[in-house]
Amino acid sequence: MNGTSTPRRFLERSLEIAATAEPDIRAFEVLDIEGARRQTDASSDRWRAGRPHSSIDGMPLGIKDVIETIGLPTGMGSPLFSGWQSGRDAASVFALREAGGVILGKTVTTEFAATEPGATRNPWDFNRTPGGSSSGSAAATGAGIIGAGLGTQVIGSIIRPASYCGCVGYKPTVGALNRGGSHDYMSQSCLGVLGASLPDTWQVALELVRRSGGDPGFAPLSGTFQALSPTRPKALAMLETAGWTRASDASKVQLNEFLRTLERTGVRILHRSSLPLLQEIEDAISDSLRLSQIINAWESRWPLNTYAERDKEKLSAAMQKRLVEAESMSLADYVAALEKRHRVRSLYARLAADCGACLTLSAPGAALLGLASTGDPIFAVVASLLGVPALSLPLLEEARLPLGLQLIGYARRDADLISIASWVRDAAAQAA
Amino acid sequence: MNGTSTPRRFLERSLEIAATAEPDIRAFEVLDIEGARRQTDASSDRWRAGRPHSSIDGMPLGIKDVIETIGLPTGMGSPLFSGWQSGRDAASVFALREAGGVILGKTVTTEFAATEPGATRNPWDFNRTPGGSSSGSAAATGAGIIGAGLGTQVIGSIIRPASYCGCVGYKPTVGALNRGGSHDYMSQSCLGVLGASLPDTWQVALELVRRSGGDPGFAPLSGTFQALSPTRPKALAMLETAGWTRASDASKVQLNEFLRTLERTGVRILHRSSLPLLQEIEDAISDSLRLSQIINAWESRWPLNTYAERDKEKLSAAMQKRLVEAESMSLADYVAALEKRHRVRSLYARLAADCGACLTLSAPGAALLGLASTGDPIFAVVASLLGVPALSLPLLEEARLPLGLQLIGYARRDADLISIASWVRDAAAQAA
Repeated sequence: MNGTSTPRRFLERSLEIAATAEPDIRAFEVLDIEGARRQTDASSDRWRAGRPHSSIDGMPLGIKDVIETIGLPTGMGSPLFSGWQSGRDAASVFALREAGGVILGKTVTTEFAATEPGATRNPWDFNRTPGGSSSGSAAATGAGIIGAGLGTQVIGSIIRPASYCGCVGYKPTVGALNRGGSHDYMSQSCLGVLGASLPDTWQVALELVRRSGGDPGFAPLSGTFQALSPTRPKALAMLETAGWTRASDASKVQLNEFLRTLERTGVRILHRSSLPLLQEIEDAISDSLRLSQIINAWESRWPLNTYAERDKEKLSAAMQKRLVEAESMSLADYVAALEKRHRVRSLYARLAADCGACLTLSAPGAALLGLASTGDPIFAVVASLLGVPALSLPLLEEARLPLGLQLIGYARRDADLISIASWVRDAAAQAA
Repeated sequence: MNGTSTPRRFLERSLEIAATAEPDIRAFEVLDIEGARRQTDASSDRWRAGRPHSSIDGMPLGIKDVIETIGLPTGMGSPLFSGWQSGRDAASVFALREAGGVILGKTVTTEFAATEPGATRNPWDFNRTPGGSSSGSAAATGAGIIGAGLGTQVIGSIIRPASYCGCVGYKPTVGALNRGGSHDYMSQSCLGVLGASLPDTWQVALELVRRSGGDPGFAPLSGTFQALSPTRPKALAMLETAGWTRASDASKVQLNEFLRTLERTGVRILHRSSLPLLQEIEDAISDSLRLSQIINAWESRWPLNTYAERDKEKLSAAMQKRLVEAESMSLADYVAALEKRHRVRSLYARLAADCGACLTLSAPGAALLGLASTGDPIFAVVASLLGVPALSLPLLEEARLPLGLQLIGYARRDADLISIASWVRDAAAQAA
C-alpha cells in the first residue's frame, strides 16, 4: 500500500474487476465481499493510525479451496466435501489475517489439488485452461482481482497456472512454509504464492513464515525483503528437462532469445553440452514426472481409500485410477522410489558450485484451447521432485498469450533465487 | 488368534472385563459394542474359511481419541471438539480395519494429547493416574479389555502410561508410522502402539506399516515378525537421564538389580562412568524436556491460535500458557532449538558403535496417587527428542504396582530394538 490509495479504494477496484471478469473466469468457489469490506475498513483504520500489521495489511487475497478457512467452506474441488466447514483457519490463513491480509474468498482448485479441472477459465482467453491445480488463485491474480493467492504444488500446480495466467508463481523449498490445515499431504507438497508482482509474492511468503513458520521439523523459509535487491549471477544453467521435446517451437525460440539477452550482460549460460554434470542431471531428471507420480500414488493411498469407501462414485476416474495404482504398490516399491529421489536430489545439489540458478520454460507453451485438461506439468515437476524453490516470471509470450520463464534454485536458498530473479526481471526490462 | 478360541469368544471375554472394569477405569470415550460384534463375526467367518486378513484379524482394538475414525466422534479431549466427526478414517485406522482388526471404541486422551487429564483411572488402583496422554489405550490394554490400542507420543505419552498401566508401549522412530488423520502435528509426534504383549504390539505395528506406510517422505518402519527372535547384544548402556535424580529409591534398586541379572548372562552394561561418549550424551540429553517443550510450543502455535480465537475459554490453562509461550517466540528461537536437537541426535547416533540399545526406567516410579496430573515424562522424553524407537516393558514393579523397563534404540533400526527386547524379556523370565 502506498500513500495515494487506501485499502478500501484498492478493494473497490478489485471488486469492480471481479464484477466484470468473474462471471467469465469463475476463479472463486466462494466470494466474501461483505467480509472483505469489513476487513478492509479495519485495515484502512490501521494505516490511518500509522499502525498497519504488516506491509501487506489490506491486500486482497484468495485462498485455494484445499486450505481451511474459518467461516467459509473448504470444498477441495470434490463433491465429497461440497460445503464442508472445518471451523478453523489453516496455519497460513491465520498468519495472513494476523498480517492484515483481506480474505476475499476461496479460489477454485481441481479435485483434491490433482488433475480433474474445476470451472475456472483463463483470463486471457476464456476458451483456454487456466492451468491447475491452483487454477482460481492464478486466474484471479492474473485478472487483477487479488494481489496474491495461496496455492499448493506437488507436481506443477503453482508454476504451470502462473505461466498460463501471466502472474508470478513461487513454490518454495519443500517444508519451508507451513502446510498445517492445507489438505495436501504428500512429501513433495508445498504451500506457495501466486502474486501480481515479484515483490508482492515474496512479501506474502515472508509474512507467512514469520508468523507460522515451516512444516514442523523442517527449516523454515529464511530471508528478508532485501533479498529483492537484484544480484547478477556469474552463471546460469539452461535446463531442457524432458519437456524440451514437447515444447512448441515458438516457446523454444522465445527462451533462446531471452538467454541471449542475458548472455549479452556478461552472464555465462551453461548447457548440457558445456558441462558434464549438467548432462548427468538432465538424464537423472528425465523421468521426474513418472517418479513423482509413483511417490504421490503411494502417499495418497490414504485418504483416497477412506473417501472411496465412503462414496466411490464421487471420485473422478483419474482419482480412482490413482488409488488402483497405489493399491498395486508394495511398501518396498515406495521405499525404492524415495531412494531414487534422494539420489537425484543429491546429484542436483552439486550444481550449486557451478551456477546460481537454472532457467527453463514454465510450460511447453501458452495455455491450450479447451477446459478438459489443465495442461502439461512436464517443466514444472522438476523442482517438485528436487524439493527446491522455483519461480515462474511472466516474461515470455506465445501468440500474445503469457508464458512463464522458470527459475529453479537450491534447497533452503530461496532468498538467493529471489535476488537472481529480481536481476533477471530487470535485465529483461532493460532489453525491452 | 489360536485355534482354541474364536474372535467372537475372545471379544465376549473382553466385553465381560469391560462390563466390570470400565465403570471404574473409564478408558473409553465411546464404546461401539454392536459394531465390534458385527466386525468380530465377519472375522470369525474369515478364520473359519481359512482366509483371515492378517494375524491380528479379530483382535479388539482401541483408538486414541485424537485419531479420526469413521462413524465415531473424535473429541480430542477438548470441549471444542466434543462430538465432532470427520467422516473419514485416519490412515492407521483404515489399515487396522483392512487387517481385520476390531475397533471396539475411542480411548480417552488428555486435551489435544497434551497434559490436561481426561477421566481415566489406573486399572491397578483407581485412585492413581493412568498416565497420559494415551491414557485410555494404556488403561484398557492394562485391564485386558483390548489386545492393543493406538497411542501417540511427542514427549512421553506412550512410554509413561504403558509403565503405569502395566502393558507394553512402543514409540517408533519418528516418521516410521503414518500419522495421516491423527491430530498431532509436531515434529517429534509419533503414532505408536500399546499392547498386551511384545508380539501383539509388534504385529500391530507391522500390519499398520504394510498398509499405510510411514509419514510421507520418511523411511517407513521396516522389519518382519522374525525380528522377535531374541538377540543377545554384546553391550547395553544404562542411561540415567535427567530423571535419575527424581526417581524413587525403590525404582532405582529395581533397575540396578535388573541390570545385574543381565550382566550375569555375559552382557556388558555400560555406564556414564565407563564410557566418555555416554557421559557426553548424558550431558546433551539433560535438558530434553525443556528443549522438547520449546519446539512443541512453536509447532503448536497453530492450531492453538485458531482454537483460542474460536473460544479461548474452552482451552485449559495449560494450553493457554503454551500458546502464550509460542507467541513470545521468534522464528529464530525455533530454528536455534531445531539445530540444537539435530546436534544431540547426531551425538547419540555415535553410540551405536558401542552398544545395541540403552536401558533406563520408563518413569521415576509407579503411578502416583491422584488424578490431577498424568505424571512425570522425564524418562520418556529422551527418545522423543532423539526421534529414536523406544519400548516400555512391564518387567519392574514398585509397591505391587507396575513399572516399565525402557529400552531405547537407534533411528530406523526398530526391528533390532525388538529383537533385543525379546531377549531381555526372556532373560527376565529365566531369572524369575
